[in-house]
Amino acid sequence: MGGQSPRQLTTRRAAPRLNRPRLTTVTPLDRVPDRTPVPAGTGLTLEDTARQPASVAGDLPAVHTTRAAFKAALAERVRAAVAAGVPEPTVGLIPTMGALHGGHAALVRQAREENDIIIASVFVNPLQFGDPSDLENYPRTLEADRAILGAEGCELVFAPDLQEMYPGYPDAPMVTVTAGHMGEVLEGAARPGHFDGVCTVVAKLWHAAMPPAPARLRSYFGQKDAQQLAVLRRMRADLDFDLEIRPVPLVRSPEGLALSSRNTRLSLAGLEAALVLHRALESLRLAADAGRPLDLDAARTLVRAEPLADLDYLSVVDHSTLEPLSSDQLAAPLEHEALALVAATVESVRLIDNMILPATRR
Amino acid sequence: MGGQSPRQLTTRRAAPRLNRPRLTTVTPLDRVPDRTPVPAGTGLTLEDTARQPASVAGDLPAVHTTRAAFKAALAERVRAAVAAGVPEPTVGLIPTMGALHGGHAALVRQAREENDIIIASVFVNPLQFGDPSDLENYPRTLEADRAILGAEGCELVFAPDLQEMYPGYPDAPMVTVTAGHMGEVLEGAARPGHFDGVCTVVAKLWHAAMPPAPARLRSYFGQKDAQQLAVLRRMRADLDFDLEIRPVPLVRSPEGLALSSRNTRLSLAGLEAALVLHRALESLRLAADAGRPLDLDAARTLVRAEPLADLDYLSVVDHSTLEPLSSDQLAAPLEHEALALVAATVESVRLIDNMILPATRR
Repeated sequence: MGGQSPRQLTTRRAAPRLNRPRLTTVTPLDRVPDRTPVPAGTGLTLEDTARQPASVAGDLPAVHTTRAAFKAALAERVRAAVAAGVPEPTVGLIPTMGALHGGHAALVRQAREENDIIIASVFVNPLQFGDPSDLENYPRTLEADRAILGAEGCELVFAPDLQEMYPGYPDAPMVTVTAGHMGEVLEGAARPGHFDGVCTVVAKLWHAAMPPAPARLRSYFGQKDAQQLAVLRRMRADLDFDLEIRPVPLVRSPEGLALSSRNTRLSLAGLEAALVLHRALESLRLAADAGRPLDLDAARTLVRAEPLADLDYLSVVDHSTLEPLSSDQLAAPLEHEALALVAATVESVRLIDNMILPATRR
Repeated sequence: MGGQSPRQLTTRRAAPRLNRPRLTTVTPLDRVPDRTPVPAGTGLTLEDTARQPASVAGDLPAVHTTRAAFKAALAERVRAAVAAGVPEPTVGLIPTMGALHGGHAALVRQAREENDIIIASVFVNPLQFGDPSDLENYPRTLEADRAILGAEGCELVFAPDLQEMYPGYPDAPMVTVTAGHMGEVLEGAARPGHFDGVCTVVAKLWHAAMPPAPARLRSYFGQKDAQQLAVLRRMRADLDFDLEIRPVPLVRSPEGLALSSRNTRLSLAGLEAALVLHRALESLRLAADAGRPLDLDAARTLVRAEPLADLDYLSVVDHSTLEPLSSDQLAAPLEHEALALVAATVESVRLIDNMILPATRR
């Protein structure tokens, strides 16, 4: 591959450095000393919503812990919507593991804009955790979650306990969904079984949330977890779930850092170092835009040049199969939209980022 | 375990031998020289239904090859049923791979008795075949199948082609359902991947056949394939499919041979030898009925004593997990219903049979 990209990358590295103060938009919110509104487009924050009286933006949503009660309540909402003159109500579902933050709020907000009825699930799914202590220590904050969801207009929450979801756990479930090869690459290589667990719980949640006709279901997932989105799109298609998947764009700080609750664990130096992920992805996107070869080596070198970042992978893959593009495909203008993904550890925090690379216009 | 069971088994072997002429009821139908009606309870035969004008028993069902058209036609049937005064119509689904015979007809008949709308699928699922030549040679007889289904009252058939079910096959599906350990034991040990393929296709068929509210779905499977039934019951429960599974009792010849299209490949001596499977299962059921220990060794010895039969397995397992009962559980009166399964090869034909062992009354 040519030397064009490295030259371009060098140019980008020489660009004016960050305006450090703006990095506070990705600072942990519990360290933010005041209630200064966050810039528009960066997402409603946990603190914003948790402190806001729910009645201002919406009532607290009803929480149901059994599938049967949740389904009955959903059916009632559908009947009410039809009675109110909506012939085919759409239901927007946001599956979550709770501990909601601004990223989740963005999902709920987009669902609110696009649908008649907004529902969410809150369930910490043991099947997608590798490390038992991670599972045990995962925050459970249902009342705060409920306030955030209500503030964004969510009407109904499914918050089952472990026995409702997996009766007999850990001996159940026995029949599960597997992501196959798509679950073994990229993040799956670092987290064996994770995507199988995601698929299994999402299949169950989709079944729980499937509204009665004439309503239709849409399920919302963040583009931030690009592999999860790709795997669940395949699951929908491969198993013929009767619903639409709606991706929600990744939210970045003004400097380009993908928002993540994990960013709260980074120092200021770590936050700045983490920006190299975005720069590496941008180098690929600019090349794709221009119809130039995608120089993965140069992009990887860029990440490796950041002393605080330890690169795990940087790949460009087919959007629907997660298969890496061949060297021929990387060298030629992109015939199809592709997906660039990167993962690196910064200050012991594993960070992921991704960017959609558009097909080259002809 | 005690000597009681073997003695009992010996007694049973000494019982009057079969009335040979009655074995013709399990003889291949295309070898049956006349149209003598088969005895009641042995199932309507392929020949009966295929020769019967469909208009006598029912119209030929509409066949749809795309999911969308099938779903639309099903929704129309539901609307019609509701308009005709059925507040919550039930839909009976019979998933098949075609090449229908009397066993399938029994499934359709039971579905007809229990439901308002009867639908079936005909799809030869490549995922559940191990041997490519088996798949290639599997009979495709859609018009005959359609006649049988219509004669039994089935109104609607989903008969997709390979590309409708698995676009991009063999590169798809990528996300699949796996039966896990339940798919690796018993028949699964002889057929790796078979039950994963069954689960995946049935998940898709259930999604295709899910009727709009207020209709409810029931899916019919024969008890003959006991492991398949157990695995699909787990799938329904573990993945929360919103439907009811209805088992259809195994049909036996008057002598006790489980009806199977494979029986047509046996000689008269083979048919007689095959009866040892039923005798072995009966020995266990009688012991269970009487609260006596279940002597697996004696039952296996019984099968092995038949020169034409080559035993693969004979097991007693938990109904819901397929886990073998422990020796303690076998020695004590049964606390829960259990399942006895046997597989053996007779004249190069692999035969399976099973029997539900009731919990001992206290």
